[in-house]
Amino acid sequence: MSNEKKLVEAITSMDVDFAQWYTDIIKKADLADYSSVRGCMIIRPYGYAIWEFMQKDLDARFKETGHENVYMPMFIPESLLQKEKDHVEGFAPEVAWVTHGGKEELAERLCVRPTSETLFCDHYANIIHSYRDLPKLYNQWCSVVRWEKTTRPFLRTLEFLWQEGHTAHATAEEAQEETIRMLNVYADFCEQTLAIPVVKGKKTDKEKFAGAKATYTIESLMHDGKALQSGTSHNFGDGFARTFGIQYTDSANKLQYVHQTSWGVTTRLIGAIIMVHGDDNGLVLPPKIAPVQLVVIPVQQHKEGVLPKAEEIKARLQKNVRVKIDDSDRMPGWKFSEHEMRGVPLRLEIGPKDIEKNQCVLVRRDTREKFFVSLDEMEAKVEQLLMDIQRDLLEKARALRDKKTYTALSLDEFSRIIEETPGFIKAMWCGEQACEDALKEKTGATARCIPFEQENLADTCVCCGRPAKHLVYWGKAY
Amino acid sequence: MSNEKKLVEAITSMDVDFAQWYTDIIKKADLADYSSVRGCMIIRPYGYAIWEFMQKDLDARFKETGHENVYMPMFIPESLLQKEKDHVEGFAPEVAWVTHGGKEELAERLCVRPTSETLFCDHYANIIHSYRDLPKLYNQWCSVVRWEKTTRPFLRTLEFLWQEGHTAHATAEEAQEETIRMLNVYADFCEQTLAIPVVKGKKTDKEKFAGAKATYTIESLMHDGKALQSGTSHNFGDGFARTFGIQYTDSANKLQYVHQTSWGVTTRLIGAIIMVHGDDNGLVLPPKIAPVQLVVIPVQQHKEGVLPKAEEIKARLQKNVRVKIDDSDRMPGWKFSEHEMRGVPLRLEIGPKDIEKNQCVLVRRDTREKFFVSLDEMEAKVEQLLMDIQRDLLEKARALRDKKTYTALSLDEFSRIIEETPGFIKAMWCGEQACEDALKEKTGATARCIPFEQENLADTCVCCGRPAKHLVYWGKAY
Repeated sequence: MSNEKKLVEAITSMDVDFAQWYTDIIKKADLADYSSVRGCMIIRPYGYAIWEFMQKDLDARFKETGHENVYMPMFIPESLLQKEKDHVEGFAPEVAWVTHGGKEELAERLCVRPTSETLFCDHYANIIHSYRDLPKLYNQWCSVVRWEKTTRPFLRTLEFLWQEGHTAHATAEEAQEETIRMLNVYADFCEQTLAIPVVKGKKTDKEKFAGAKATYTIESLMHDGKALQSGTSHNFGDGFARTFGIQYTDSANKLQYVHQTSWGVTTRLIGAIIMVHGDDNGLVLPPKIAPVQLVVIPVQQHKEGVLPKAEEIKARLQKNVRVKIDDSDRMPGWKFSEHEMRGVPLRLEIGPKDIEKNQCVLVRRDTREKFFVSLDEMEAKVEQLLMDIQRDLLEKARALRDKKTYTALSLDEFSRIIEETPGFIKAMWCGEQACEDALKEKTGATARCIPFEQENLADTCVCCGRPAKHLVYWGKAY
Repeated sequence: MSNEKKLVEAITSMDVDFAQWYTDIIKKADLADYSSVRGCMIIRPYGYAIWEFMQKDLDARFKETGHENVYMPMFIPESLLQKEKDHVEGFAPEVAWVTHGGKEELAERLCVRPTSETLFCDHYANIIHSYRDLPKLYNQWCSVVRWEKTTRPFLRTLEFLWQEGHTAHATAEEAQEETIRMLNVYADFCEQTLAIPVVKGKKTDKEKFAGAKATYTIESLMHDGKALQSGTSHNFGDGFARTFGIQYTDSANKLQYVHQTSWGVTTRLIGAIIMVHGDDNGLVLPPKIAPVQLVVIPVQQHKEGVLPKAEEIKARLQKNVRVKIDDSDRMPGWKFSEHEMRGVPLRLEIGPKDIEKNQCVLVRRDTREKFFVSLDEMEAKVEQLLMDIQRDLLEKARALRDKKTYTALSLDEFSRIIEETPGFIKAMWCGEQACEDALKEKTGATARCIPFEQENLADTCVCCGRPAKHLVYWGKAY
């Protein structure tokens, strides 16, 4: 179909140039645009609507697990940021500094928050006094700024949107439970809502968050075999509490330090959706977060009865489905391509011949399968197909991820895989940072995580040959 | 009741010191806290939950009227801010400047957005080409920064949360319609959701937004007789469009400039809720935005059957009502005061004697009226009372506002009212800024608005005696 070809030609094939394919989708599907500010993007209505569905889903999960939303200032005084030594070392090189308010130079510089641990700690020190005040289970939806050199829409931008959970607990055990609970919330959200399979595990010391005792992560794999850190959950132990003096009197009237966690996911997950589900025709959206779940395309719409029928179908479906009619003056073929580009999960075609036969045509975005469905069974079929798509996207992504997950028993094998068939590499590690550094130096791969599901592939480290401590997932990452 | 007194004594009476009363409520009801950053507040869970209910209600109204949410960068390059002359003059003195990113000094300073007209215009110039691209009906939820000298929680802070709508239209008429449509959305939201009556009108040229052709406003009156600008809607005409080159080809293939609007409300509305509905026992919340609409207080909760009954009541009510049980180890009197302080609209008391009689006690926060209600009729009564409270709060606020709205026919009378019985003053105005300046100089009052509902109180200006052009609402304002 020539109209369809035309639009398809407009985006680069992912095999030809994956980075360009990614950028093309963002532009053509109206997800985001560049702005006059270097490295900052404009999230357009279609992209922002996806974020809103993600927020709604996550926010409900946070509230179900007892969390409350708050809002902290976007500025952090330099002295406050510097309180925790590891933390400031990790973040100071990449913050934006406010030095003037109006015409006056400030006595103390303020950084635009890159993350808000220091502000939460400062607040917790003021409001936590007794064991009755614990736990504090706070979350914040906001934007943060990190002065990155190289940026790419959604994946790495100077400013991005995220949520950051910050909690304080009476005991180390409770903090650890919370850290894992929220990692599981993220993993479940990615799999059940975004249809993105993840590997859960712990970061190596080299890769952990600045100031954390331990960082846990969910890692996903993109079409091009690169990994994406998709969410992290940190256990701070009582490190920040000691620095900021966050103490409470326990039930025996003894002063104790609190134990803290933090956890976050960002708009980079929109990048993950593109790179896990997208194809050469554009975006493919999981129904649960698709702003439009079904688009009705009237065929020969000028013919009597077609548009009213399309309206009737919309009215019937919209009780349970996010549905839209495209009755613009474009040709149907153009419309098919356009809504494929935007990743709309289901297309419903209705024309004079269909009306005659009391049927409509349903087409799945993901498989392009076509179904001729009696209008009497339309609602049930649409609902069924949306569930099928949601499930199949996860299964397909899991199959691809598994296919692109390799094992390496030697450094040679490791290098060859990275070079020839990029993906996750499972390999044993001695636990020494020297080997992590050497592997990165030689192959560009980093330790993505020490997965919770350990296997014993070999007894020795893939790099140095000394006794192995852990199985690690390695990969090149965004 | 002594426990109750104790808490009541903890806040200043509004007649003794209104400003202190206001601050006391914010602190005691856990709405907000001060932060380490001058002039920036921490919005605590209870305050933020109110904002979330306000957001949800407003966002639904925006979407019903065809608007879409987007997200623009938080930074504006200095050159972009300077493009529109009036606009930069209005805002440059009160912006925060980012001068360094990491360790590098920036080639061009970036201001933290005080408002986003310039960013939206820059984007619109890129994405609007044809009449088919119009209208653009965008909204953004975000935080903005204005470098204020004097700050007060919710009313005036360096950083505050808001929404800003920005729209572009083909014609001047459509832009004017939109400006008034959104003003009406705000007015309806304030009255129906927040139970705050407003006066709708137009700002004088002196008071209008920097760069606008016309600014419309909703003005409300606080308990202390001061006015609060509660929302504004601006018509920009094609001024910004000419500066930023936002043009489209019309259906006759001719180049035209778009006509634009913007409109916003902020977290200062939480300040309005406090100062319109609050009393000497604390906050009073309209049920529609109350995080907890009904609190169950078990009386003699250690007695057998009391707590299970409270749980049963909660389970029955929570289908339609946001309900919470306070089963802490405090005395009932302490709990009564505590939840009155937090403005919970309804209190439900249940004790052994009530259970025996198959009844409960319901107490209204606003009037303190007490109702003995059969448990069989509980749901219906609770629902009815919540509706009554919502309606009565608006009526009570309207009556007080009307009582505190005066007319002045002479400058003497004007000054005496401002001095002795602060409130809205209706007075005639010649339309000259000199008189506006003189009135402000002499009395501290500003023109709140030229109301849509005009009256002819006199033929001459209250200040200069020349022919009057408009009736104006005057007042001292926050």
